[in-house]
Amino acid sequence: MSSPPLTCHAIAALPLVHTGDDLGALLVEAIQTAGIRLAAYDVVAVCQKVVSKAEGRIVELGSVTPSAFALRVAESTGKDPRIVEVILRESTRIVKMASGHLICETGPGWVCANAGIDESNAERPDSVTLLPRDADASAKALQARFSTDAGGAPIGVVITDTFGRPWREGLVDVALGVAGIGAVLDYRGATDMGGRTLHHTVLALADAIAAAAGLLMVKGAGIPAVVVRGVSWERTTGRGRDLVRPAALDLFR
Amino acid sequence: MSSPPLTCHAIAALPLVHTGDDLGALLVEAIQTAGIRLAAYDVVAVCQKVVSKAEGRIVELGSVTPSAFALRVAESTGKDPRIVEVILRESTRIVKMASGHLICETGPGWVCANAGIDESNAERPDSVTLLPRDADASAKALQARFSTDAGGAPIGVVITDTFGRPWREGLVDVALGVAGIGAVLDYRGATDMGGRTLHHTVLALADAIAAAAGLLMVKGAGIPAVVVRGVSWERTTGRGRDLVRPAALDLFR
Repeated sequence: MSSPPLTCHAIAALPLVHTGDDLGALLVEAIQTAGIRLAAYDVVAVCQKVVSKAEGRIVELGSVTPSAFALRVAESTGKDPRIVEVILRESTRIVKMASGHLICETGPGWVCANAGIDESNAERPDSVTLLPRDADASAKALQARFSTDAGGAPIGVVITDTFGRPWREGLVDVALGVAGIGAVLDYRGATDMGGRTLHHTVLALADAIAAAAGLLMVKGAGIPAVVVRGVSWERTTGRGRDLVRPAALDLFR
Repeated sequence: MSSPPLTCHAIAALPLVHTGDDLGALLVEAIQTAGIRLAAYDVVAVCQKVVSKAEGRIVELGSVTPSAFALRVAESTGKDPRIVEVILRESTRIVKMASGHLICETGPGWVCANAGIDESNAERPDSVTLLPRDADASAKALQARFSTDAGGAPIGVVITDTFGRPWREGLVDVALGVAGIGAVLDYRGATDMGGRTLHHTVLALADAIAAAAGLLMVKGAGIPAVVVRGVSWERTTGRGRDLVRPAALDLFR
C-alpha cells in the first residue's frame, strides 16, 4: 500500500447511558474493549444521543403541558401534542411546517426536523431526548478525557447527529460540536496543483468525519461511537457552532 | 478488534486523464499499483473531474462567445464572461446570484455553485470542466470494469463532487452518480432497538460514502479515487439522480 488507509472502528460495547454517567470514562472503557489504543490525531465521533442522555437532556412527556398552539399543531401534524410542545420549547424559529413535519431552527442555529428531538429511547418509552445545549462544550469534556487516556496526545472529538438537508434526499450525519479538531479546513489563499490560488474553499471537515462515522452508526446497529484514524486535521479551525452558516452569507437557501 | 474496520484507501497513481481515455482501465491499474485487490462490496469513489475529462466534458474558453446577459453577469460578479456563458449554458435555473456567486441548478437537479464548472485544469489553463452529462451512466461504465476485474463480485461505484450546501458552512463531497451500490438505504418500516417502527428514515448512503472518500480527496492532494471497504450496502436502492429531492417534497428549503 502506498499510504496507510483511513480507518473507522465501530465502538459497540457501551452500556446503556443514564443521566449523570461519566460518558468519557464509559467510552474510554468501550474503546479499550474494542481493542483500540487511542493515538495522536485519532478522532472519536460520538452520537448526540448518548451525550444528551449523560447530560440529562431528557424530557418526561408526563411532565409536559402542551400550549394552545402546540395542541393545534399536533392536530394538523398528527403528532403527540406533548412532543410538539417540547419541539416548540427547543425551537428559536419554525423554518417550515407542512405534511406532518416540523423543520426547526434550534441550538446555535441548527436546522433540522423536530428541533432534533429523538423519540426512540428504548429504556424510557415515555420520554424524548433533546440535542445537547452546547455540543462544543460536550465535545470538550470528552476530548480532555480521551487526550489524558492517550498520554496527552492530540485527540479530536466530533459530536454527531443525523440531519435531513435541502435539495438532496436522505439523511446524513453532521457535526454538532467539536473539540481538539477544528470544524473546517480553510484553504483560502492556498494554491492548487497548477499554482492557481484556491478561492472560497472551506471544507467542512468535521461534517465529513461525521458522515464517515455515520456509515457505521446506521440505525439499529447500536454503535454510539466510532474512532476515525488517518484524517489530516492539524490545520483545522473553528468550533462546531461555526458550521452554522449565517443567513446573510447563505446563497444556497 | 470486535469487527473489521471500515477502511478508505487513497488511489494516487493515476496519470493525467485526457478525452477518450479508458478511465476504467486506468483506475484498475492505479488500484493495483496501490496494492489493492478489489473484493466483494468494495466501493470505488471517483471524483467527477477525472470522469468529466475522460468523457470530454471540457470547454475551451477560446471557443465561447458570451451572450449579452453573460456579459452583464460577468460585470456584476467579476467573473470571466466566457465562464459565465458556460455556466449559463449548463444551468436550468439560477437559484441565487449575489456577492459574485452564482448558485445554479444543473444536470438532473443538482444545486451547486457555478453549475459545477471547474476552472482548475492544470494542463489546459484556458479551459473549464463541466459535470458529467449522466453521472449514473458514467458510474455504470466504471462499475462493469471493476466488477470484471474482481471476478464478477459486486463492486460499487460512486462519482463524487464537492458541493456547498444551505444552512451549513463549508463544502462536503456528495454523490452525483452510482452503480452497483444504490444511492440510499431505506429503513422505512424497520424497527429500532426498542421495537419501535422507524419512520421517514432514508439514509443517503452514497453521499456519506462520498464524504468519507472526500477526507482523502482534499484539495491539492491529487487523489482522484478512493476504495471504501466495509460499508454494508447490500440493501441500498436508487440511482444517483434519486438523491435530488423533488421541490414539492423539500421542506428544508
